[in-house]
Amino acid sequence: MAQVYDRVALIGLGLIASSMFWAMKRSGLAGEVTGYARSDETRATAREIGLCDVVYDDIKDAVRGADLVVLCVPVGVMGPVMAQIADALAPGATVTDVGSVKKDVIEQITPHLPEGVHFIAGHPLAGTEHSGPRAGFAELFDNRWCLLVPPEGADPEAIARLRNLWEGIGANVEEMDAEHHDLVLAVTSHAPHLIAYTMVGVADDLRRVTDSEVIKYSAAGFRDFTRIAASDPTMWRDVFLSNKEATLEILGRFTEELFALQRAIRQGDGDHLFDYFTRTRAIRRGIIEAGQDTDAPNFGRSAGRKL
Amino acid sequence: MAQVYDRVALIGLGLIASSMFWAMKRSGLAGEVTGYARSDETRATAREIGLCDVVYDDIKDAVRGADLVVLCVPVGVMGPVMAQIADALAPGATVTDVGSVKKDVIEQITPHLPEGVHFIAGHPLAGTEHSGPRAGFAELFDNRWCLLVPPEGADPEAIARLRNLWEGIGANVEEMDAEHHDLVLAVTSHAPHLIAYTMVGVADDLRRVTDSEVIKYSAAGFRDFTRIAASDPTMWRDVFLSNKEATLEILGRFTEELFALQRAIRQGDGDHLFDYFTRTRAIRRGIIEAGQDTDAPNFGRSAGRKL
Repeated sequence: MAQVYDRVALIGLGLIASSMFWAMKRSGLAGEVTGYARSDETRATAREIGLCDVVYDDIKDAVRGADLVVLCVPVGVMGPVMAQIADALAPGATVTDVGSVKKDVIEQITPHLPEGVHFIAGHPLAGTEHSGPRAGFAELFDNRWCLLVPPEGADPEAIARLRNLWEGIGANVEEMDAEHHDLVLAVTSHAPHLIAYTMVGVADDLRRVTDSEVIKYSAAGFRDFTRIAASDPTMWRDVFLSNKEATLEILGRFTEELFALQRAIRQGDGDHLFDYFTRTRAIRRGIIEAGQDTDAPNFGRSAGRKL
Repeated sequence: MAQVYDRVALIGLGLIASSMFWAMKRSGLAGEVTGYARSDETRATAREIGLCDVVYDDIKDAVRGADLVVLCVPVGVMGPVMAQIADALAPGATVTDVGSVKKDVIEQITPHLPEGVHFIAGHPLAGTEHSGPRAGFAELFDNRWCLLVPPEGADPEAIARLRNLWEGIGANVEEMDAEHHDLVLAVTSHAPHLIAYTMVGVADDLRRVTDSEVIKYSAAGFRDFTRIAASDPTMWRDVFLSNKEATLEILGRFTEELFALQRAIRQGDGDHLFDYFTRTRAIRRGIIEAGQDTDAPNFGRSAGRKL
């Protein structure tokens, strides 16, 4: 594939940045890829495993001369990081991010944006429960969606280039506005994560059932929740705090619905339960038909080892 | 392996019974295996795919002469099914079940138990989101737990034989009392299932986010919930109605905890969220170390097809 950017800077070297790096190397869409991470340890790991062509100790050196800068830091620190790099950005460069919340991130970044630098917010809907520079792999974005949230009046050329990059590393790209993005993600990601965290916390707290029982018997359904609840704590703390309104709205609806089902259980209303469960089954079918999950039983998990 | 039972009758031919059949054939632990299902269609499918050595149209014919009868029907109909077969059971035979609730099932079955017939309640903690006679496979129980709940004074020989069968088809066996079983399963299975059903229902209901968006962007976390919420509606309706008290207790604790986290989000208490999410991550580690799930990212799912 033809090169889309000459020099890409990855700021923050976790799961997403490292996957972008390996995917860009696979596709040949980027010339040089530079990197920066705040922690000495992460930078050392990146150098050890060959993550980025050059890893800089100074964030400004990493972005200098880049025609694309990708902010891969927790959403809570997007503003301060943008403030740090602003005066080192090249005119005509594009800044993007990969944060799971868009309205708050755009509000944080926009005030620091120098004249002549494009900003196109982004969010690849891809990830795993693992984090850190060693967690990335080139296939992470294959057939996943990347949502772009360009500001009003954004340069069509800059949008098209960024779209080319994401499509070139495997993703399907869609544009939407920030508010709708944050609501859709509250439904498909933020509320489910908080619910999974909560359920795993409840299981851990329960004195009459031991942790070892919870672990031993987790295959009955609970283990699916523990995967989600193993996601990066810093990232998720920031997501909930930055997408407060939409998340609380969806959680409010969730609680309402849960109470209705609890009442059906208490009153023995089997028809209500049966109808509800039949309806939810259909959604799964749609996801499999859309190629967004596997139809293999239990996600095609390999069996655990024999004890 | 040596044969443990000469003749095993499987009553109800869904995911669990069909997996038991293929696993028993793999291990050679059972002589003849007979089967019965209430629906004509299920019996026809079973005959077509060679599920059971003989499929009977009359439930009594299926259990006659069996030294093990396994009730694989929804927990809501265990009592009526037991009443139907009671006078056809051979003296010395063992009756067991595979229901996800134990106290209620024992109360349903015990009154119909003929003199000289053993009853040892059981529950293999294994399953997938698929159901029906075609859903079974021989490996389903490999390295999963099977919980046995023998009544007080049960014949040790009958317990040992049933344990041998389950171990022979791949499971690890543990004994516990019915009340504790029902509480443990409320935590590891019943509450998580209800929560997943609820979240999927909420997503489906939301007018401001379309179903197609929910499906497209499900990889952000939601799709894990949809797998659980695709489980058999009849089975789960009965589970919730039969394990009402323990399920409602756990859901009560869940709601309490969810409200505390919602308050932390509303008040911007990042430390509370961070500490909570760090604690839940550790549980996942325990499950992987215990061999109850895979450490591969995203359960080792294969990527969906390219759109």
